[in-house]
Amino acid sequence: MVRVGILAGSGYIGGELLRLLLQHPGTEVSFATSRRYAGEYVFKVHPNLRGVTEMKFDVFDLSKHADKADIVFAALPHGESVNVVPQLVDAGIRVVDLSADFRLSDRAQYPLWYGYEHPHPDLLGKFVLSIPELNRDQVKGARLVASPGCMAITTILALAPLLRARSLGVDPAHVVVDAKVGSSGSGGRPSLATHFSERFGVVRPYKPAGHRHAAEIEQVLSSIAGTQVKVSMSAHGVNMVRGILSTSHLFASGEFKPVDLWRAYREAYAGSYFVRIVKDRQGPFRLPDPKLVVGSNFCDVGFEIEERTGRIVALGATDNLVKGAAGNAVQSMNLMMGFDEKTGLAMAPLHPV
Amino acid sequence: MVRVGILAGSGYIGGELLRLLLQHPGTEVSFATSRRYAGEYVFKVHPNLRGVTEMKFDVFDLSKHADKADIVFAALPHGESVNVVPQLVDAGIRVVDLSADFRLSDRAQYPLWYGYEHPHPDLLGKFVLSIPELNRDQVKGARLVASPGCMAITTILALAPLLRARSLGVDPAHVVVDAKVGSSGSGGRPSLATHFSERFGVVRPYKPAGHRHAAEIEQVLSSIAGTQVKVSMSAHGVNMVRGILSTSHLFASGEFKPVDLWRAYREAYAGSYFVRIVKDRQGPFRLPDPKLVVGSNFCDVGFEIEERTGRIVALGATDNLVKGAAGNAVQSMNLMMGFDEKTGLAMAPLHPV
Amino acid sequence: MVRVGILAGSGYIGGELLRLLLQHPGTEVSFATSRRYAGEYVFKVHPNLRGVTEMKFDVFDLSKHADKADIVFAALPHGESVNVVPQLVDAGIRVVDLSADFRLSDRAQYPLWYGYEHPHPDLLGKFVLSIPELNRDQVKGARLVASPGCMAITTILALAPLLRARSLGVDPAHVVVDAKVGSSGSGGRPSLATHFSERFGVVRPYKPAGHRHAAEIEQVLSSIAGTQVKVSMSAHGVNMVRGILSTSHLFASGEFKPVDLWRAYREAYAGSYFVRIVKDRQGPFRLPDPKLVVGSNFCDVGFEIEERTGRIVALGATDNLVKGAAGNAVQSMNLMMGFDEKTGLAMAPLHPV
Amino acid sequence: MVRVGILAGSGYIGGELLRLLLQHPGTEVSFATSRRYAGEYVFKVHPNLRGVTEMKFDVFDLSKHADKADIVFAALPHGESVNVVPQLVDAGIRVVDLSADFRLSDRAQYPLWYGYEHPHPDLLGKFVLSIPELNRDQVKGARLVASPGCMAITTILALAPLLRARSLGVDPAHVVVDAKVGSSGSGGRPSLATHFSERFGVVRPYKPAGHRHAAEIEQVLSSIAGTQVKVSMSAHGVNMVRGILSTSHLFASGEFKPVDLWRAYREAYAGSYFVRIVKDRQGPFRLPDPKLVVGSNFCDVGFEIEERTGRIVALGATDNLVKGAAGNAVQSMNLMMGFDEKTGLAMAPLHPV
Repeated sequence: MVRVGILAGSGYIGGELLRLLLQHPGTEVSFATSRRYAGEYVFKVHPNLRGVTEMKFDVFDLSKHADKADIVFAALPHGESVNVVPQLVDAGIRVVDLSADFRLSDRAQYPLWYGYEHPHPDLLGKFVLSIPELNRDQVKGARLVASPGCMAITTILALAPLLRARSLGVDPAHVVVDAKVGSSGSGGRPSLATHFSERFGVVRPYKPAGHRHAAEIEQVLSSIAGTQVKVSMSAHGVNMVRGILSTSHLFASGEFKPVDLWRAYREAYAGSYFVRIVKDRQGPFRLPDPKLVVGSNFCDVGFEIEERTGRIVALGATDNLVKGAAGNAVQSMNLMMGFDEKTGLAMAPLHPV
Repeated sequence: MVRVGILAGSGYIGGELLRLLLQHPGTEVSFATSRRYAGEYVFKVHPNLRGVTEMKFDVFDLSKHADKADIVFAALPHGESVNVVPQLVDAGIRVVDLSADFRLSDRAQYPLWYGYEHPHPDLLGKFVLSIPELNRDQVKGARLVASPGCMAITTILALAPLLRARSLGVDPAHVVVDAKVGSSGSGGRPSLATHFSERFGVVRPYKPAGHRHAAEIEQVLSSIAGTQVKVSMSAHGVNMVRGILSTSHLFASGEFKPVDLWRAYREAYAGSYFVRIVKDRQGPFRLPDPKLVVGSNFCDVGFEIEERTGRIVALGATDNLVKGAAGNAVQSMNLMMGFDEKTGLAMAPLHPV
Repeated sequence: MVRVGILAGSGYIGGELLRLLLQHPGTEVSFATSRRYAGEYVFKVHPNLRGVTEMKFDVFDLSKHADKADIVFAALPHGESVNVVPQLVDAGIRVVDLSADFRLSDRAQYPLWYGYEHPHPDLLGKFVLSIPELNRDQVKGARLVASPGCMAITTILALAPLLRARSLGVDPAHVVVDAKVGSSGSGGRPSLATHFSERFGVVRPYKPAGHRHAAEIEQVLSSIAGTQVKVSMSAHGVNMVRGILSTSHLFASGEFKPVDLWRAYREAYAGSYFVRIVKDRQGPFRLPDPKLVVGSNFCDVGFEIEERTGRIVALGATDNLVKGAAGNAVQSMNLMMGFDEKTGLAMAPLHPV
Repeated sequence: MVRVGILAGSGYIGGELLRLLLQHPGTEVSFATSRRYAGEYVFKVHPNLRGVTEMKFDVFDLSKHADKADIVFAALPHGESVNVVPQLVDAGIRVVDLSADFRLSDRAQYPLWYGYEHPHPDLLGKFVLSIPELNRDQVKGARLVASPGCMAITTILALAPLLRARSLGVDPAHVVVDAKVGSSGSGGRPSLATHFSERFGVVRPYKPAGHRHAAEIEQVLSSIAGTQVKVSMSAHGVNMVRGILSTSHLFASGEFKPVDLWRAYREAYAGSYFVRIVKDRQGPFRLPDPKLVVGSNFCDVGFEIEERTGRIVALGATDNLVKGAAGNAVQSMNLMMGFDEKTGLAMAPLHPV
């Protein structure tokens, strides 16, 4: 059994890591930390786990915890992970970090997007930004992994095949990403903005410009495209708890027909169980929709062509807490530790829900 | 591997049976029938199963299907199952029936509640109404099982300990059951009543009196109480897809303190993994709520005492498609076929969702 | 023009008073107070009023405000109103109080239900608990009015005709009230319980026993019935912002047929525009549902009979912020100040919404 | 009193016309037609109007109805209006048409977007596409008016100031419009796509390319910009009943600072009560959101600048049934008949809802 530890287990991503890892056939959860809920039963914070575990939350203590885990999942906030994770690295522990602190390879991006100078720029080169469908082999060999942001991975998986296919002639300077996300993406801390009476029924453009996930998307897509990609991203909160739909609008100057796009997607994701290409002729389920992936590690991708305007619309849908966070982290761990990629993650989505 | 067949696999309960049985480690789904969608891929109807199965729906044909299944789950409508299931019985096939057609042991109830004379009253005595937490041993030995209605099982599990405990002095003639249910309980057929713009945001008292599940509840509780119990039931549709909260109001003349009720519930459900007693001192998760069981086979039960009015409020919460239907059916099958009760059913609920 | 003031104008009830009174053809809002938002534009707190008013919130100051209002609406919290309102009374200002502090006529009830000794018991006899449909003439002559709780008025209007009709033989000791309410009833203060991710999709039994509105209901119904009525009340939070459905379960020993109940309701509410009797033969709109009164001052009432169990189910539905609070308060003011009861309140509900 | 008639009064837009016109101080509704519900009470179809009107639906009959209305609102489906409205025109009756059949001035567009040759191209030049905030004077003098599509008007009002301001250098060939709409926009006809269990919780890209409202938007914006504008539009269904958020992404090559955009919007909408410029520094209400206009005729507009990518994000929010349809139609009627523009339309939005 692989012994795993979870840092910041009381947030929504922490709870999802617990749900997945407690039910994973190859792992044993050695500890889950939480400053706020230290000493409390896990199920008091994550009521779904009542009857599932009698664990309590711990305060993190490297000297105590270092020996207890073969791998640690860090779900700490941005800016905090950057100070804690290096201690784990020094102690020789494998890490899957779910913050943004080790996602960007260029240290110069941190002041721009996150407002701090990275204190451990040497580590940036040692972390693999894990999107197994794009860099499975790299992840297999890694000891240190960063899992991308929920909107980033959803968008990247929808766009990668199109930016890789040079013949499409996608304009890299005008990639518009319009994302719609559920409330769980903004965490468990109550505020006026998340007060039910204020949050119910919204289509709230909470970050129309300057969203940080654009940095990750540009990093990965530029590398795939072989040219600098510029992402114009807007994020909206919608009336649901789980899920992301990322709608990308691309302008393309090449020849492109449906068959070309089909081929691009199929080649990209052959052998990738967790990416489903969803593009039927008709019916309400014919294109990606986050409703159809709830509770699963699937990322559904699909597309539409508008000849009149020279536009490709690329769609990606995930459960933001699973493939958008904890699920992708566990999938990465599976690869790192020699499990089959699907282990503990193959549950089908719930429908209807 | 146990070979299973599913009749009427295209409805919501059929879809949930497919989800559970396709992922069950001890079963193999031999066929799933649907008149309407015969020849279609299962995943076109149940989009969550895209990528999970390449099965297609079949038309039911006893001569073709009889040899292919060790056990059949029938999710046919009331009044239709009663004509199909006897053919399976005659063919010697084990059956878990999810309709109401074999739930009531007294044939005289069928004209009253369902408007038809039962054509096979001899079979009524051969079916076990399966609520494993109450009659596990009976189910283990059964070849023919009826799974109760979603509101029935949720209410029965909440009330059984109180009606068994004679010292509480519960008034059996004035048991009020006020149920709140999600839309999936009324199936997949579009109508004005289920049109999103009309159904969204309702608290609709769709069956304030005369709900059929009262018959099942009375049958089971009367047997437990040793006296005729009369259930005054009202059912309301609320703004969600999955889930039931059953709130029962009992008047009691005996001495009852929290400790007595705790004891009654604990004794009743010791060893029953799928019933969680939920009664904390504080917090939004302190009592049963269907939100906290979504996607799982749990039935959460809890209670509150109001001394001033001599009232006990008993609460039960389930995911109506899982413990309220397909999950309880699979749990019954596990017992019938010698599996551990939890096999294929132990997934934790999703939270938040 | 009647000059009105609003105390505690920044809460949801305060906002609704502002919405109604700013659009009322016979009133002019002189001031609206808020400690927390003093000096802020009203529309920053109530974004619906952007473009509607340029008012700012004031700190309450009797010396400054006494001369500016012919009548004051107090939407202060329970326990706070009781200290502020007497100052207005002393200053000779008419008051419509929306807290519970002047609703109960028996001072002995305050320690039991609200945990405090009433400091001004003499005032209790001077306030009229205003339900115009039941005591219109009293309200017309009043200078001091208390508006009932949202669940109270909804339940009382549904039950009053049945308790008045002695021939029905309603059992006054076993009146079960099962209420389902939207989030706005619990106000605008964020907490874990109201955090969107935790509150979305619930059917949460937040007060299964001991709800304070039972006291008001018992007071009014006992007076109507001419005997002590005992109310067994449970309150549930459901997945919506506005609205209440109150489902009452009565046991009755008399002769009662639909025609008798129709007569009781019709006689009770002839001439009462804001009570609609909703009881059609069929269709999704055949009984009261809070979805169908959103934004209006209507209280829909209806009923169903279950002969088998000797039960009458009585249903009431309101928009909790309108007829359940601010609307009833404005209706009361209309009567007190000589306006037609409907003035400024006759807007139809929104549908669908 | 202006006598009005309503064709196709049983749909959602028809219902909203009835709600507004029955409460309008200057109009009297002479008739409302519906083939399907002829002879039925209006309130059986629009349950919000119970108690508000005792009208019944009529079958349309020109000979009978021509004398009864000074103006007719036609809410017929596209392709049907085009055959009925010319009869009204011939009879000399003023018309506000809410279908698409008279919106496009270029007859060549009809085969492209709507699949039919326009049978009355001569009428196209006689109808004014009414957006009072942009062409108030034209509407004042008109006898024949077409009211734009819900997504069209919402988008046009958000974009018009930016396309008028030549100094911004907006790229007219790459205007991306990403719209999120509630279910009421797709009408009252049940289907699998609108079945509650399937529609709840979606972010469904139901028309990622080729949406017909693009034609209207291009027509108006091209005229304002003085050059051909190309609109790349995608429409998504989200989890609510009422409301639209239109997010437009523009690329601009000129100099633009917040102050320039503020000026453009202020100049455009000075004196237009129903357009609110929403752009605060902080808080959850700082930008347009359809939640904040529910039930009102407001169109909220706002913007954000992203210098890094040379992008302006322009936001528009309406209640699709009010400013997006019936409200704009009544506003147009007000102008045509000499009423103040706001008459019968000044109700504030509901909040929270």
